[in-house]
Amino acid sequence: MARIAMLGTGLIGMFYTVALQGKRGRDEVTVVYGRDPERTKAFAEKHGVPRWTTEMAEAIAASETDAVVIGLPNHLHKEAVALAVEAKKPVLCTKPLARNAAEAREILEVVEKAGIFHGYLEDLVYTPKTLKAIASVQQGAVGKVLWTRSREAHPGPHSDWFWNKELSGGGAIVDMGCHCIEIGRSFVGKDVRPLEVVCWGDTQVHPIEAEDHAVGLVRYATGAVAQFEVAWTFRGGMDLRDEVSGTEGSIWLNHWLRTGFEVFSSGGPGGYVAEKAESETGWMFPVGDEAAALGYEAMFTDMLDALEAGRPPVETFYDGYVVNAIMDAAYRSMETKRWEPVELEIWRGTEGGEGRAAAAAYDERYDLIKRERMPDGRVKLILKDRSSGEVVQKVEGS
Amino acid sequence: MARIAMLGTGLIGMFYTVALQGKRGRDEVTVVYGRDPERTKAFAEKHGVPRWTTEMAEAIAASETDAVVIGLPNHLHKEAVALAVEAKKPVLCTKPLARNAAEAREILEVVEKAGIFHGYLEDLVYTPKTLKAIASVQQGAVGKVLWTRSREAHPGPHSDWFWNKELSGGGAIVDMGCHCIEIGRSFVGKDVRPLEVVCWGDTQVHPIEAEDHAVGLVRYATGAVAQFEVAWTFRGGMDLRDEVSGTEGSIWLNHWLRTGFEVFSSGGPGGYVAEKAESETGWMFPVGDEAAALGYEAMFTDMLDALEAGRPPVETFYDGYVVNAIMDAAYRSMETKRWEPVELEIWRGTEGGEGRAAAAAYDERYDLIKRERMPDGRVKLILKDRSSGEVVQKVEGS
Amino acid sequence: MARIAMLGTGLIGMFYTVALQGKRGRDEVTVVYGRDPERTKAFAEKHGVPRWTTEMAEAIAASETDAVVIGLPNHLHKEAVALAVEAKKPVLCTKPLARNAAEAREILEVVEKAGIFHGYLEDLVYTPKTLKAIASVQQGAVGKVLWTRSREAHPGPHSDWFWNKELSGGGAIVDMGCHCIEIGRSFVGKDVRPLEVVCWGDTQVHPIEAEDHAVGLVRYATGAVAQFEVAWTFRGGMDLRDEVSGTEGSIWLNHWLRTGFEVFSSGGPGGYVAEKAESETGWMFPVGDEAAALGYEAMFTDMLDALEAGRPPVETFYDGYVVNAIMDAAYRSMETKRWEPVELEIWRGTEGGEGRAAAAAYDERYDLIKRERMPDGRVKLILKDRSSGEVVQKVEGS
Amino acid sequence: MARIAMLGTGLIGMFYTVALQGKRGRDEVTVVYGRDPERTKAFAEKHGVPRWTTEMAEAIAASETDAVVIGLPNHLHKEAVALAVEAKKPVLCTKPLARNAAEAREILEVVEKAGIFHGYLEDLVYTPKTLKAIASVQQGAVGKVLWTRSREAHPGPHSDWFWNKELSGGGAIVDMGCHCIEIGRSFVGKDVRPLEVVCWGDTQVHPIEAEDHAVGLVRYATGAVAQFEVAWTFRGGMDLRDEVSGTEGSIWLNHWLRTGFEVFSSGGPGGYVAEKAESETGWMFPVGDEAAALGYEAMFTDMLDALEAGRPPVETFYDGYVVNAIMDAAYRSMETKRWEPVELEIWRGTEGGEGRAAAAAYDERYDLIKRERMPDGRVKLILKDRSSGEVVQKVEGS
Repeated sequence: MARIAMLGTGLIGMFYTVALQGKRGRDEVTVVYGRDPERTKAFAEKHGVPRWTTEMAEAIAASETDAVVIGLPNHLHKEAVALAVEAKKPVLCTKPLARNAAEAREILEVVEKAGIFHGYLEDLVYTPKTLKAIASVQQGAVGKVLWTRSREAHPGPHSDWFWNKELSGGGAIVDMGCHCIEIGRSFVGKDVRPLEVVCWGDTQVHPIEAEDHAVGLVRYATGAVAQFEVAWTFRGGMDLRDEVSGTEGSIWLNHWLRTGFEVFSSGGPGGYVAEKAESETGWMFPVGDEAAALGYEAMFTDMLDALEAGRPPVETFYDGYVVNAIMDAAYRSMETKRWEPVELEIWRGTEGGEGRAAAAAYDERYDLIKRERMPDGRVKLILKDRSSGEVVQKVEGS
Repeated sequence: MARIAMLGTGLIGMFYTVALQGKRGRDEVTVVYGRDPERTKAFAEKHGVPRWTTEMAEAIAASETDAVVIGLPNHLHKEAVALAVEAKKPVLCTKPLARNAAEAREILEVVEKAGIFHGYLEDLVYTPKTLKAIASVQQGAVGKVLWTRSREAHPGPHSDWFWNKELSGGGAIVDMGCHCIEIGRSFVGKDVRPLEVVCWGDTQVHPIEAEDHAVGLVRYATGAVAQFEVAWTFRGGMDLRDEVSGTEGSIWLNHWLRTGFEVFSSGGPGGYVAEKAESETGWMFPVGDEAAALGYEAMFTDMLDALEAGRPPVETFYDGYVVNAIMDAAYRSMETKRWEPVELEIWRGTEGGEGRAAAAAYDERYDLIKRERMPDGRVKLILKDRSSGEVVQKVEGS
Repeated sequence: MARIAMLGTGLIGMFYTVALQGKRGRDEVTVVYGRDPERTKAFAEKHGVPRWTTEMAEAIAASETDAVVIGLPNHLHKEAVALAVEAKKPVLCTKPLARNAAEAREILEVVEKAGIFHGYLEDLVYTPKTLKAIASVQQGAVGKVLWTRSREAHPGPHSDWFWNKELSGGGAIVDMGCHCIEIGRSFVGKDVRPLEVVCWGDTQVHPIEAEDHAVGLVRYATGAVAQFEVAWTFRGGMDLRDEVSGTEGSIWLNHWLRTGFEVFSSGGPGGYVAEKAESETGWMFPVGDEAAALGYEAMFTDMLDALEAGRPPVETFYDGYVVNAIMDAAYRSMETKRWEPVELEIWRGTEGGEGRAAAAAYDERYDLIKRERMPDGRVKLILKDRSSGEVVQKVEGS
Repeated sequence: MARIAMLGTGLIGMFYTVALQGKRGRDEVTVVYGRDPERTKAFAEKHGVPRWTTEMAEAIAASETDAVVIGLPNHLHKEAVALAVEAKKPVLCTKPLARNAAEAREILEVVEKAGIFHGYLEDLVYTPKTLKAIASVQQGAVGKVLWTRSREAHPGPHSDWFWNKELSGGGAIVDMGCHCIEIGRSFVGKDVRPLEVVCWGDTQVHPIEAEDHAVGLVRYATGAVAQFEVAWTFRGGMDLRDEVSGTEGSIWLNHWLRTGFEVFSSGGPGGYVAEKAESETGWMFPVGDEAAALGYEAMFTDMLDALEAGRPPVETFYDGYVVNAIMDAAYRSMETKRWEPVELEIWRGTEGGEGRAAAAAYDERYDLIKRERMPDGRVKLILKDRSSGEVVQKVEGS
């Protein structure tokens, strides 16, 4: 059992608390910190949290606090981590770890220097589908990964600070790109070095400074490319999809709008259908168990099991730092309009990649480009003459 | 926290134990009973259960047993419940409650007479999607329920006793129809009386006595019809779908083969893809978190919360009895080839139904049959003359 | 090239004309008959039909009429066919052929006696998906057919006469059950005798005499069961789905609401989205090419190619008669509340069925019930002792 | 009626011929040209083409040739067009128009100078779903278009010349990117200037010179971005999907692998399931009418109707030229690793774009960033102070 100090009372603090205390969980949020006393008190009452405070240090240092969960706006992560380190408490921080790689590195170094347990609350890597898909990829179900696509798009976040670049560090990339980048990295392999990024981003709709729409490509040392797509401009609910393409297979995940739950209603029930749904009549696509589908349950299971077992969780502050470094390159690419290198002063994975899959020799003269069965049942080969480069086709048995 | 005696070490015992002990759960299986010592010992070791036995009474009476979970073949439920009653332990029994309504009634009466807490482990009513869909229906999202369809079909069960009519009480209806019937009942309203059943069943493929395929209709007092479809003959994996149709809307649930998780693999990873999947190459449709998707998590949460709170769970032995009574009528209908009444000696819901939705009067002369917008934007009305019965159409504004 | 007399100017006449004259078709509607002069004239102008009339006999007898297409209400089919026979013109009649089997038989006999070419315009058997699925079934893709389900449901027809039992002959069964029954029959095999029907039907919502909702089962001589589901009470658009389940496979068709075309619109474009769509905002599911998706194109291609080639089309008046006989049994079953025989005075298919698939002998003692691969990779067999009937399980290699 | 000279006997020539002569079409292929006499003769026999030749000029000049359809490898388009111009015959050319923009411009100029009718056979713009989606976008269903995604991916083409960069002009971009680019352009608006392109491409799997995988972004003058994704490395069949995202809505199209046709077969029927399907067992996803689903029917309808009516078709050689110019920029970007301008010496659309959607003023002080309904029913506004830039939130009615 873990006793948690929850920092933050917004949507994310609510989701974390529900996930931690939900079902037959053995963990408890024992103190909650918020800036606004009324709101914090209400949060504590609603979720049965015995103690609340508007002093962050108090929540962290409380004797009943076994671990600290940071669910605060991005600009407050560094301060909160520092307080946890001071109190020598394990600390779990929401995504993104920081507003940029420099800040993320500072945060990483302070916890590592102090030897503090740290977890990076990258929930979307932990959705039941994503976990199983990553395991399938690791078992070879799709062969060598060639390309991934991770997309998160909706009509924009619920809280004001997200829309303020000072406080958040950016726009849709900082808000959601961090998810998409880490999902892509998890499919490609987290020990594979991200080399460079090209990114388009624009402020297409809203009267804000930061980008409300962006698409980027991250190129990895194996030659794989991981595509991320983020938007605060999407209409239709929340579009949360991942795709992987490899030499031997493909995976398509749809986490939100098409999960096998389809409702048509001519006149709404008046209730809350799903996070970021846009309407209460017509065809709607709710999600069965939102906290589970978003990965919160499996994430805290890993985090707290890791804490108790004395092992690192799947996602640590180091991962948060790598993601920030990739996002920094994306923002530079938006400015320079070219591929920008990912600057990773700290790199703990492998170097070099694997190059192209070895050409399959067909015989002494030819390499095999493609083998396919034709409608008439015969097999056609497309071959390349290794010396002349000529491409020919040949029907087997003819 | 609840300390559980698990009776049974088959697939269902495994799923129950994983659900009870999974994630950050606070409950524990403290003793497991099985008939085969080797298998029971292996089960205990695999799932970290501290004690195992081949004596059912011992597991139930053990001082560390707070509650008993029955995961045994159908013909053993009555004996196991009797032992729990004797030991005055709360008892949760897998589906179906019994082999027929008479046996179910005996089981119900023995627990009620003893005042023992009892839960009916009807997991498919508890899937995250089903729970949310039932709540939507109760909130009026589809209006008055007119029709439901619940389908469970796969290539047949894993254990031998299912295929033996003596031990199981029947075939696919007893195995899976109980799920489909209770899902339909949950949509129509559990206090609405099931009136009669017509059912087709046949042994189409397997060399067995019992039906391996059946389709039935249950007519309720409100006029709603709940359709159940069960098969041990289905090819393609496990087909687990529900539909509801009401005066104001529709719901379609797909729990298994189309949940937003799609994998193509040219050469399998060698691993376990999903319960009852049929292949390890080509397009496959795994489920993210099987125990959650099948409702085990939410079911035990309700059951054990109810036990602690001193309230009945959503599904009690009484529900199991009603389901058995409906299945009995289905089996009779297979014999007599006609609608058969549902014989419920114990009925605790409402009597009577609601009849047809009141006709909407259009004006003094006509009832409104239908109002529709035509492609050209005008509105067409189809009206019925209340006295002459004549049906006419009228374009508004023309 | 065929020159067509189109009888009827309603929705069905419009769809037929668009299909016949659409794209780069070589056929032409050269005369159109309708009861209302204004409407008929407008129809002719809109579709470029050179001649119109309010005299049915004139349209049929016209020198430029090569073939007659009947798109009239059910109670007028017999008269129209008689006029075509009199004029010795090939005749294609919309579905259902008649209001009941007796009337259908009269219609069939009059055309056969006169040796007139006749086609039954059962468009939903001809959708591109259905045609390919039937071909797959015939090639053995699903093995022996065990069960089919065909569903058509929407909020009710557009014209007044459908709602008048006198004119139409019935309700949703006569309107749409004819489609579903012939689709099921096409999957089971059109030469397999339909034996009996059980059917539930009710008037759940509308102030009409006829059923607005029905579900029926047709049992065939091979043991296959074909389920039909029809509703004028469905909310959400038009639900048009078919399923087939066989010993070796399964097919699922969705013709309308989920065809890979998904639109979310916050504020409607003002246009016509799709036949029987219910809204113009929110998530909508249009169909690309409605006339093609509903089978009209492939149907007229078969019909007119057959006429030119002097062969019968896939669907003849005989098929229409069989369908009427099955619907008659369904209506009787609604009254008697039991399975009712299909009374076919004219039967041109095979007699007898195939019985259960032969049991697979495992060895001298056992029949094989099921073979399955377990999660650990081993193969488990479920076997039945032929003499004792005992069911056992055995793990291969153990 | 049009009498067609078909140049080419490959897969594309076959699809074109089937589409032209299929169903009840009034057009005919009257002569076919191929380089290989045996194959050409066989093609003519199979498709009922009365005349065949290995002389391209002969086929074009034949007195029975009303129009020429070019279905040849890319490097032969220019020569074929020149011969058609010489013979003063209308000419329809397959995609891409040429190997690069310079060659495309030459082709365009020669037909325009001669005043010859020309059509660009961009079939995927003409699929029934795409046509309807483009019409919806033009009617305003999604508001202002912000982003599009068009994807075509499969395991590689059937003929050898595609794999030879000399003959084809490139790899997957030239083969399929032309489709995706024109689809994106059709959604954004064909009169909107494409400004610049960034593109990643790589040869990931095959022993060839050209790219077998590429992703690019095309930025348009309105600020919209059109994403294209092409791969010869995809496993699982043919992935053919389009998406559009606008200020008021979204569209998702799936043309191939998920169209509402789903088959599971344990042992294949031996037949041809679908173009580029990868297996004949397990779950498969055929397409009902392939020629229609790929747009061939609607394309030739538009082309030949346009020819007869003396109007230009939807897709002309000019469109082919624009697409080639965009592909040229994509190839340059792959080299320079930066955004590259689209060089269009001939531009016939509008100049300038529309900029960001006008900010919605909330009151004298604030702009509205977002309005949303909260779970509790109240409406929350996120506002930006126009002078200070501060972002605040406000709950209406509180």
